[in-house]
Amino acid sequence: MASQEIEALSQALARLPGLGPRSARRAVLHLMKRRQAALEPLLSALQTVADKLSTCSTCGNVDTSDPCSICRDPRRDEKMLCVVEEVADLWALDRSRLFPGRYHVLGGRLSALEGVRPEDLTIDKLVRRVSAGGIDEVVLAMNATLEGQTTAHYLAERLEGFPVRLSQLAHGLPVGGELDYLDEGTLAQALRARRPVA
Amino acid sequence: MASQEIEALSQALARLPGLGPRSARRAVLHLMKRRQAALEPLLSALQTVADKLSTCSTCGNVDTSDPCSICRDPRRDEKMLCVVEEVADLWALDRSRLFPGRYHVLGGRLSALEGVRPEDLTIDKLVRRVSAGGIDEVVLAMNATLEGQTTAHYLAERLEGFPVRLSQLAHGLPVGGELDYLDEGTLAQALRARRPVA
Ligand SMILES: [Zn+2]
Ligand SMILES: [Zn+2]
Repeated sequence: MASQEIEALSQALARLPGLGPRSARRAVLHLMKRRQAALEPLLSALQTVADKLSTCSTCGNVDTSDPCSICRDPRRDEKMLCVVEEVADLWALDRSRLFPGRYHVLGGRLSALEGVRPEDLTIDKLVRRVSAGGIDEVVLAMNATLEGQTTAHYLAERLEGFPVRLSQLAHGLPVGGELDYLDEGTLAQALRARRPVA
Repeated sequence: MASQEIEALSQALARLPGLGPRSARRAVLHLMKRRQAALEPLLSALQTVADKLSTCSTCGNVDTSDPCSICRDPRRDEKMLCVVEEVADLWALDRSRLFPGRYHVLGGRLSALEGVRPEDLTIDKLVRRVSAGGIDEVVLAMNATLEGQTTAHYLAERLEGFPVRLSQLAHGLPVGGELDYLDEGTLAQALRARRPVA
């Protein structure tokens, strides 16, 4: 139907998460019918990001500058460090604007199954950041999975002896979670971590 | 959270049909983490389409060449012409690969409410195409809406007297349509257009 160039654009868009072949075709048509309002802005935004794309050498975030905008932001509390598995986790957490400190991206999680060992992650770098001083609290924000928790335990061992408070995200009922829709694991966690009512 | 450049890209993507702000952010992260595999191919495909973007001066399709790839395709039956309201309709129809001929995009539909008159559409151009000869059949593929059908009737009048067969897409039950889920209008059409069983 369409030219090879349009097919190529359609396929490149279809590979984005959230877009399938059908919606990619609709997106292409949308872009072609709105050259000034849609195609040109997307093209220039993409070009800019491609030109400046870099991985933060401090925290591992991907951004358009190194150090990244979070590491350079003077309003961030440099005494607090939140350790996450992936850049996606950093973005998800930071979107909530609840954490006032900085981040450290491990680049994955320890996994016997997938053969991921401590030296495959940025753990030594994390230890160096902490041992350099100036950090009061390290929040271990691993996923609530077996591998995430294994990683958190390992990190807690590696950071033992440094003058920092170690904390971990609370596990329990998600906000709005109805008991009879939750899986057993979440329920068990919530029960185990129960707190006295004032 | 992210730099202004990343925000701009995220917003440009969020304006695409099928992507909201949330999936746009996921898409941006996907692109930034896969520079070679995702970002570069999308950028270059987008650049190519932007460079070559044109509206076909024959049929009104948007493509990367003028005449468009359909109008230039020698395997197309030039004796058959399918008239549609919008480029999106052309793409939707052509995707099915059921129509072997060429197209004519009106650029809308007649609408008293929205003040769209015959001269706002490419109707004169359609009449010129037909009067130039070489066309045996004109398929009026308007939407099954009041305005679509008004437009089809108007076109039928304008094309009266030319030696072409005029046809129209059949209206009736959609494939797989269950009677008790269909609206009354579709049911009425299907009943009115009923055909004898062999
Ligand atoms: Zn950083
Ligand atoms: Zn054309």
